[in-house]
Amino acid sequence: MELPRVILDISSISPLRKPDHDTVYDMLILGGGPAAMSAVVYAARKMINLAVITLDFGGQMNETAEVENYLGFPSIMAGDLVARFKEHITGFDIPVSMGISIVEVRRKEDIFEVLMEDGTFLFGHAVIFATGKRHRPLTVPGEKELVGKGVAYCATCDAPLYKDKTVVIVGGGNSAFTTALDLLRLNAEAVVVNFLSGWQADQALQSRVRKFGKVQFLDYHEIVSVEGKDKFEAVAIRDRRTGEEKRIEADGIFVEIGLLPNSDPVKKLVEVNAHGEVVVDCYCRTDIPGLFGAGDVTDVPHKQIIISAGEGAKAALSAYDYLIEKSQI
Amino acid sequence: MELPRVILDISSISPLRKPDHDTVYDMLILGGGPAAMSAVVYAARKMINLAVITLDFGGQMNETAEVENYLGFPSIMAGDLVARFKEHITGFDIPVSMGISIVEVRRKEDIFEVLMEDGTFLFGHAVIFATGKRHRPLTVPGEKELVGKGVAYCATCDAPLYKDKTVVIVGGGNSAFTTALDLLRLNAEAVVVNFLSGWQADQALQSRVRKFGKVQFLDYHEIVSVEGKDKFEAVAIRDRRTGEEKRIEADGIFVEIGLLPNSDPVKKLVEVNAHGEVVVDCYCRTDIPGLFGAGDVTDVPHKQIIISAGEGAKAALSAYDYLIEKSQI
Repeated sequence: MELPRVILDISSISPLRKPDHDTVYDMLILGGGPAAMSAVVYAARKMINLAVITLDFGGQMNETAEVENYLGFPSIMAGDLVARFKEHITGFDIPVSMGISIVEVRRKEDIFEVLMEDGTFLFGHAVIFATGKRHRPLTVPGEKELVGKGVAYCATCDAPLYKDKTVVIVGGGNSAFTTALDLLRLNAEAVVVNFLSGWQADQALQSRVRKFGKVQFLDYHEIVSVEGKDKFEAVAIRDRRTGEEKRIEADGIFVEIGLLPNSDPVKKLVEVNAHGEVVVDCYCRTDIPGLFGAGDVTDVPHKQIIISAGEGAKAALSAYDYLIEKSQI
Repeated sequence: MELPRVILDISSISPLRKPDHDTVYDMLILGGGPAAMSAVVYAARKMINLAVITLDFGGQMNETAEVENYLGFPSIMAGDLVARFKEHITGFDIPVSMGISIVEVRRKEDIFEVLMEDGTFLFGHAVIFATGKRHRPLTVPGEKELVGKGVAYCATCDAPLYKDKTVVIVGGGNSAFTTALDLLRLNAEAVVVNFLSGWQADQALQSRVRKFGKVQFLDYHEIVSVEGKDKFEAVAIRDRRTGEEKRIEADGIFVEIGLLPNSDPVKKLVEVNAHGEVVVDCYCRTDIPGLFGAGDVTDVPHKQIIISAGEGAKAALSAYDYLIEKSQI
């Protein structure tokens, strides 16, 4: 199941050229988060013939409020930082395919073929795969149908819609408790439901959440189904100790149970780890020559904007070295 | 000869506290370039009891004119970017030891002791070693005065400023030829001057450079002096075969005769590679538990500001995990 992604219209910032489907580009950059955008900066400055394929720009940054740890910006709204990143890359006049999903990355001899959802292909001598991560869905009946109709995965994006309302939050880690805090501060009434026993969030964060009166906690409970006709109405949960089922009515449900790497298009081609992350070495090389990975879709430790930006630069320069060695450029 | 290092007075931005020589800090961050500064941001936000030891802030950035490849800043003067980085870290009120060199990092049981040039020590449970590199300078008259005014040490940083211009490149190895390629691709006209006889760069790379029309090669030539009033104007060279001297006028000179890692203080303690770089894994761990490396002093590929900033964040988060595991914090 794919979560909905906000397709941002960046045409107002700079006119975008579409990539040519008959060209074999020196480099294709797949993704639009900080890793991909930093790769674009480095590749474009090397005057490489490149194209970008992405659903949107910003990636997970579009689901964040404020950023205080990107060196150079003591505090900036995530949307403003994305706008600055986009301004940086649109200055290079690189062709961009936006809004169409990637189905598969294949390799035929030394050329990579990227199969798009609309059945077309884009071709490249080197590929930087930087497609990021997406929120893990519950995978229960009713969920998919109600995404965006009361089923939410991003407090930063959607919490303001639930001011003074009742919500269920699924998860027991920092994301779940941060989401709870966001909602409780908006005077929402919350029930936090965790599949695991106990709570995994930092103690300090838990204490802050527990200070609010209108919050309940149910650990070791499984989500059975999501209910509602045109919009979310209730969730059915099962007590994993007793097997007893019950129903919680609410205005919305926030699912905060982790992230999944968007690695499906390369899973047949390259090594991925147990979490589905693309395995890269310290040069951002996968086990397939010419295919480089960068950012949250890879097994790089500590997923952070500044780390992804560094990895994107690294991948672009490694791919440049590969193209030089191959005498492609 | 050491390249001039601008010792910036950051007291105007925020009052700096001096570190306490009797405290064992949870973390000591050694260095003041982008790797160290990004590490400070991440460690400070984790509320770790930390101190910074550095000669200056900015590191090699102080030798660059314009930065166009730090994602979020399409074009910014290096000095302004350093100022922004400093503003970011001085917001945390971390104690800083400035202007005194580090002699040696030692380990006594689980505690690291940092011996300073003035004979004092600072102590830490974990250390992030991010002391950077210095360009090997030509050590000729006129060079020092024109750094950043036509005398450049980094093609990736500065080549785009020499589009359609004339440049001298000093060196005969891969760095010199990669620099030549970068510049020739930008339609610059180049003269490559090598102290040694012949050329040491990879053949493939040499062939690619030689395909360009507007490049000349002078091996076995010594740089005598760098000339120019407020900006670089010419270089005087001497033919080592004949002793004959001549003058080459150009818009800029790129010195690509190597970099030296500032790894002396840890050479007895951790593994370094043949270039003297501290060997780290993808988590920025050295072979000594509790001692992490980040940025240009390590064997991380493609030394760049954004990469160093990413590595600094990574090292701080890895060091945090180490302290948690050790139950130190």
